[in-house]
Amino acid sequence: MPLPDKPTRTAHLGHVELLGPRPEESLRFFTDVLGMTITAREAQSVYLRGWRDYERCTVKLTEAAAPGVAHIAFRAASSAALEAVASAGLGGEWVDGDVGHGAAYSFRDPDGHRFEVYWETESYRPDGDASVFVNQAARSTARGAAVAQIDHVNLMSRDVGASRAFAADALGCRLSEQLLTPDGHELGAWLRVTSKAYDLTYTADRAPVGDRLHHLALRVDTREEVLRAADLFAEHGIFIELGPARHDIGGTFFVYVYEPSGNRIEVCAGGYLIFSPDWQPAVWTVGEGDRFQAWNTPFVSSFMTYATPDAGGG
Amino acid sequence: MPLPDKPTRTAHLGHVELLGPRPEESLRFFTDVLGMTITAREAQSVYLRGWRDYERCTVKLTEAAAPGVAHIAFRAASSAALEAVASAGLGGEWVDGDVGHGAAYSFRDPDGHRFEVYWETESYRPDGDASVFVNQAARSTARGAAVAQIDHVNLMSRDVGASRAFAADALGCRLSEQLLTPDGHELGAWLRVTSKAYDLTYTADRAPVGDRLHHLALRVDTREEVLRAADLFAEHGIFIELGPARHDIGGTFFVYVYEPSGNRIEVCAGGYLIFSPDWQPAVWTVGEGDRFQAWNTPFVSSFMTYATPDAGGG
Amino acid sequence: MPLPDKPTRTAHLGHVELLGPRPEESLRFFTDVLGMTITAREAQSVYLRGWRDYERCTVKLTEAAAPGVAHIAFRAASSAALEAVASAGLGGEWVDGDVGHGAAYSFRDPDGHRFEVYWETESYRPDGDASVFVNQAARSTARGAAVAQIDHVNLMSRDVGASRAFAADALGCRLSEQLLTPDGHELGAWLRVTSKAYDLTYTADRAPVGDRLHHLALRVDTREEVLRAADLFAEHGIFIELGPARHDIGGTFFVYVYEPSGNRIEVCAGGYLIFSPDWQPAVWTVGEGDRFQAWNTPFVSSFMTYATPDAGGG
Amino acid sequence: MPLPDKPTRTAHLGHVELLGPRPEESLRFFTDVLGMTITAREAQSVYLRGWRDYERCTVKLTEAAAPGVAHIAFRAASSAALEAVASAGLGGEWVDGDVGHGAAYSFRDPDGHRFEVYWETESYRPDGDASVFVNQAARSTARGAAVAQIDHVNLMSRDVGASRAFAADALGCRLSEQLLTPDGHELGAWLRVTSKAYDLTYTADRAPVGDRLHHLALRVDTREEVLRAADLFAEHGIFIELGPARHDIGGTFFVYVYEPSGNRIEVCAGGYLIFSPDWQPAVWTVGEGDRFQAWNTPFVSSFMTYATPDAGGG
Repeated sequence: MPLPDKPTRTAHLGHVELLGPRPEESLRFFTDVLGMTITAREAQSVYLRGWRDYERCTVKLTEAAAPGVAHIAFRAASSAALEAVASAGLGGEWVDGDVGHGAAYSFRDPDGHRFEVYWETESYRPDGDASVFVNQAARSTARGAAVAQIDHVNLMSRDVGASRAFAADALGCRLSEQLLTPDGHELGAWLRVTSKAYDLTYTADRAPVGDRLHHLALRVDTREEVLRAADLFAEHGIFIELGPARHDIGGTFFVYVYEPSGNRIEVCAGGYLIFSPDWQPAVWTVGEGDRFQAWNTPFVSSFMTYATPDAGGG
Repeated sequence: MPLPDKPTRTAHLGHVELLGPRPEESLRFFTDVLGMTITAREAQSVYLRGWRDYERCTVKLTEAAAPGVAHIAFRAASSAALEAVASAGLGGEWVDGDVGHGAAYSFRDPDGHRFEVYWETESYRPDGDASVFVNQAARSTARGAAVAQIDHVNLMSRDVGASRAFAADALGCRLSEQLLTPDGHELGAWLRVTSKAYDLTYTADRAPVGDRLHHLALRVDTREEVLRAADLFAEHGIFIELGPARHDIGGTFFVYVYEPSGNRIEVCAGGYLIFSPDWQPAVWTVGEGDRFQAWNTPFVSSFMTYATPDAGGG
Repeated sequence: MPLPDKPTRTAHLGHVELLGPRPEESLRFFTDVLGMTITAREAQSVYLRGWRDYERCTVKLTEAAAPGVAHIAFRAASSAALEAVASAGLGGEWVDGDVGHGAAYSFRDPDGHRFEVYWETESYRPDGDASVFVNQAARSTARGAAVAQIDHVNLMSRDVGASRAFAADALGCRLSEQLLTPDGHELGAWLRVTSKAYDLTYTADRAPVGDRLHHLALRVDTREEVLRAADLFAEHGIFIELGPARHDIGGTFFVYVYEPSGNRIEVCAGGYLIFSPDWQPAVWTVGEGDRFQAWNTPFVSSFMTYATPDAGGG
Repeated sequence: MPLPDKPTRTAHLGHVELLGPRPEESLRFFTDVLGMTITAREAQSVYLRGWRDYERCTVKLTEAAAPGVAHIAFRAASSAALEAVASAGLGGEWVDGDVGHGAAYSFRDPDGHRFEVYWETESYRPDGDASVFVNQAARSTARGAAVAQIDHVNLMSRDVGASRAFAADALGCRLSEQLLTPDGHELGAWLRVTSKAYDLTYTADRAPVGDRLHHLALRVDTREEVLRAADLFAEHGIFIELGPARHDIGGTFFVYVYEPSGNRIEVCAGGYLIFSPDWQPAVWTVGEGDRFQAWNTPFVSSFMTYATPDAGGG
């Protein structure tokens, strides 16, 4: 039986708009410490890209009273795929294009997160900054952690199963891995639209607020660069919450920090790719006690509770 | 306009059957030096996998009078996709399944290389060798270079353009990068069916023989492991032809050797992924002189001429 | 003023004899998982080396009722230096040479640890295993974590200051780094006889037993290999106590495990070298709370209390 | 028999003064591409350090009509050792201290290279740039290749044997490795005063000029950083002469470039340490043909002939 056409609805995670009350400090973190490049400014927002990102904007920082995520944008697989999304009864609306991309269809997932899907985009090929590598949009930076590209976003959800089903339906996400409690309650779902093990993740939210961000992840090429990023974070007074260490799920090597506005940011490398068209999701059961699984990493409870906007009380 | 359905015909490179006159020495190379695992033996063939490969066989070694490639197998994207391949007028035929996979449709490309496309496959989940990482088929090996998985195959072609067009049509390959002479003659085409920059490559063959192999590539997770593989090759008397160094095309870090039966093998890491659904192929023009492009790597002429079976005279 | 001659008394840490009640399981760990090579067996002992060690033996495993360290051996800087050690009033005695080295002067430090200093040694140049690298004793192994060489030993001491002063006097150790409580109590001393930041470490022991081992450290060349070692430990059921992570002190990247007989083993990489002849020791004050310093690594209390032989109660 | 006291004459390579006709472009290379930090300017000179160097200056750039090396400075092992150097009949003279260090004894080696040995030095502990790592002089940089510290200098010599013997006598250098022609002519000598395999190297100079520089080497912590440096060099139009690749001698991973004034610069990582007090020098015989030894790296003839000042004709 042929696979349904939904998996080709979206091609990849495009960009994420983060909110924050300390826009200048956050911007310095994203440019000087993470090494991203400013590609546009408009109103209360700054648009950024990593050195390998092919689009003009992969992270948009917007000043706001509280941290959090304003929207998550996926690029459609084609213009027809975008039409299919828009006509799928998701209850959303068309919105004008933002800096770097064309008109988008905007809708909310069951937990309240706002998604956008767009097709038209602006490839980033800046004058005067051409790379000797013609397969690369621009010269690589050598500033700070020099993050290469956007990787994935992890959203809190008060009902992971509902969010996962919605993302499969609306965006064409496939389930790669799943985290359950011993009695079968779904704590997390790792979803993909590319060959990467995940592009979008939902993590169980015990707070009643809704529309919260667990973290945004930016990728570097090597685990060595994650280690170097950790040194930079330490040297620049950035709070390291967890890592560097290895996620069993996805196999990713990571370090998590809080950027100055309060949002959790991951710098990651490694992990595996899924090529099998009939991949069976890997199911993990969360263990007892205070250690992570394979590497026996000590547990940090804030990682399971803190999200933005903060709900108080963990 | 929606993309044509051909890109979803095949999901990934499945396995490659190599031929060789020194089967025992080749097998020792693949198991002890590269660190692959024997998963079956039948008649004059041995079946092998890397520690991350999810199928039973990704490299098949078969005793023969001369080195070369017997067939290249891609897994279909679905059973319907396999039917579509079989009914596309490729002039092939159905063949029985081999160890590890079901019935395959077999056909030849314009240069004479035999391809197979199959859908049914055997996931490798050996008893007594389960990994603590439930997203991994079996425990990783720690033997020799410990190659993780099959990556790509590079075939010689007397007409790269014709082979490229055929692969696009038959397998759904998309063009990622291209190498031209200054006057526009096509020297190489890098083609993908996954998010990787390439899964299948054609390189111009000036010899008149046809059906020749440039190399088979096996992947490790890090560039450090490529460097370690080079040390192992040196210590075990394996001829290193080129590298470790970086390919501008694909961004891959590599080392090339000749396995004991004479076939060229690459151990590779790194490179980039293509997520853009409207990726514009990167076009390189081969330079004058005796150096590679960005890193200015000294040129080794055999790399442009040697292939298996050897055509004599380069 | 010229430096005193004591710093040239010993050249480097030579070998460590570990005791353990599970000799066969420990031996499998050291050979199959760590990748060391057996170079001799005698009575209840097995002699091992890492692939870069230039002496026949750097780890000696001896069957015993309880885990712990039987002796720590340093190679003298010269035969005259050995004579100087033996005539320094350390209250020890000459002992016959063991496998791989000549006569040694044996004595105990204030906490009861038995040290040996020797000069004559057997360079390891095995027939039939020569490396293509003529600066290397033998071919490198590619088995398991493939540890390269002995790095340092960390001994518990009920009086760190006394042990540190004794090691300076007897072995010529210089102080590189020091860990203090907020009120100035000495919790640890990192001592060197080479350019490495440390070859011998004392850690405060609150148990009254004496002569206890905190850990023996074996070195790999890269942090990537430490990460790979952690995966191997996970896959082989070896208990990971801490790491992979970075020590602020020494800058070393590490992972700590318990070998099957119960001794704590570190696999380490990186760190810095001390070239300055008037290096001022770096002094750290242990922090409040449950995190390590620069990377904010979660604390594992057993790391401060568990040692071999186990004193019970932590 | 005790070792002679000469090996303790000098502690380490201190700094190297490079000459060049393009001071501004060279300075941009050293600061923006290599990532060194300016610590002083005086007359026609700029003083630089790497992020881990503990002294104020490890590279001094001085404007001059032609490239080359003005002097090579070693730090004495003690003030008494400096006196011993000054009274050893080397035919030199005392010179005033330069920025960052006190009075030095200056003399020339048989090939004409000017050496200085000094004892008093200025530790670099800049206000407002303290590292969270108290064992580190200042915060690490994250700019460009971010070289950590000076590693070694390689000088051309018209008589390698004579230069080697002089360095042993004057500086206390010990021979680690040696490169010979098949008929026994000495092509290179690798000499150490620390635990590193080499701090000073002499390479045979077939040009009659004298006092020429083969290269100055700066160290990074990992081979990954050498690879990253190569990408940066490519992106910034810096001529890569050789590498990244591995030296059999010393085991160092390297990339060689020409800085804008024409001097050859190496960025290196890895290699091995020598702890044995009776190390027997490793002797290599240069091979036939156009390949390097273990990795079979293609040969670049300029590497054996080009030096600064350029002698013309290779």
